[in-house]
Amino acid sequence: MRVFDNKLRWCLTCLLLSLTVFFPARPVWAAEPIKVVYHVADGVEQAARALLNIRNHLQAEPNTKIVVVALSNGVDFLVEGATLKSGKPFEPSVATLAAQGVEFRVCNNTLHGRDIKPASLLLESKIVPSGVAEIARLQAKEGFAYLRP
Amino acid sequence: MRVFDNKLRWCLTCLLLSLTVFFPARPVWAAEPIKVVYHVADGVEQAARALLNIRNHLQAEPNTKIVVVALSNGVDFLVEGATLKSGKPFEPSVATLAAQGVEFRVCNNTLHGRDIKPASLLLESKIVPSGVAEIARLQAKEGFAYLRP
Amino acid sequence: MRVFDNKLRWCLTCLLLSLTVFFPARPVWAAEPIKVVYHVADGVEQAARALLNIRNHLQAEPNTKIVVVALSNGVDFLVEGATLKSGKPFEPSVATLAAQGVEFRVCNNTLHGRDIKPASLLLESKIVPSGVAEIARLQAKEGFAYLRP
Repeated sequence: MRVFDNKLRWCLTCLLLSLTVFFPARPVWAAEPIKVVYHVADGVEQAARALLNIRNHLQAEPNTKIVVVALSNGVDFLVEGATLKSGKPFEPSVATLAAQGVEFRVCNNTLHGRDIKPASLLLESKIVPSGVAEIARLQAKEGFAYLRP
Repeated sequence: MRVFDNKLRWCLTCLLLSLTVFFPARPVWAAEPIKVVYHVADGVEQAARALLNIRNHLQAEPNTKIVVVALSNGVDFLVEGATLKSGKPFEPSVATLAAQGVEFRVCNNTLHGRDIKPASLLLESKIVPSGVAEIARLQAKEGFAYLRP
Repeated sequence: MRVFDNKLRWCLTCLLLSLTVFFPARPVWAAEPIKVVYHVADGVEQAARALLNIRNHLQAEPNTKIVVVALSNGVDFLVEGATLKSGKPFEPSVATLAAQGVEFRVCNNTLHGRDIKPASLLLESKIVPSGVAEIARLQAKEGFAYLRP
């Protein structure tokens, strides 16, 4: 009986240790900052909406990690000199958000297909091979939420 | 040899118990009802599409938990007296869906930015600080799927 | 002391075994191919963008599992004889992608609501009861990422 008690005790300790290792207080991901990918693909009006959304997002949740993936007509706002129809330039908003940690990733397929020179992009842009593959990868492999502004 | 057998047996029991604790038959989330956030941001025509989608969704899967997050022009259908271009009012559809458990959350940034009084919203609406932050939070922290009607 | 050492050794072995069982090198899902659902609901122009996106996606990541869920006006491109405004037919693109493993699922609610005969659909189409429920299910139960082209 004594031996059994001892074994049971060890067994339970073991289980408890496992639980501590696998479920530390709350699941790790619950404490991590939220990560979100913004899918921008429809031209400068949608891009302006996206930037406004992101400003509001960071104001409400400053810890959020935000990555903008731009493809198709969605890359236009990241070309140097891009403006809204009203004439308002995009560059200052992009610079401000980049300074807050927002990343801007541009689809290389789009650059090729639309013959846009990488040198013409704002310095804040980073080129990725495929915009859609990047959006899927961020969701599937890095736990990003998805938003289509 | 006997001692070794005993230890091995305990060790295996321990592992088995752990497996039972961590993987009870099927992962817990597999049995849970599906949760979905509908992102409504484009005005009354998109809102009408969203409500139609949600009706079909609940007909096919009555157990689904659905939260509508309305922001930007997407809040218009939740203002009292809102109608489609055809003159059809939104209120009855919203009331019916709310009675089936659908929640309607409205972005407070939008209310401020567009100067919409909270009192002018349908009673079914609940105000949240930021629509986009809410959409991201539901996906990242509460396991919601995402739909952009 | 000796007994304690033995027990500690067994306990640690046990833990190590558990770790190997639960976290085999990398989490299982990290090694799995990425799965993505494309939500097509806006008519032939959006469908054409979706097919272009998917071609680029598979070129960048050939292992990706892609399911297109078509509903509302998004089913039009899967009706036999469907063309772009330019007159370019959809059928060859759909056939090519299907041969690469892309699946095309069509919302039965839409077929009923818009009175489209199943027999008029391209052979590559598969009918599902509800498009939106299918999109939510793929995300919530099968780990699909989401893209709205």
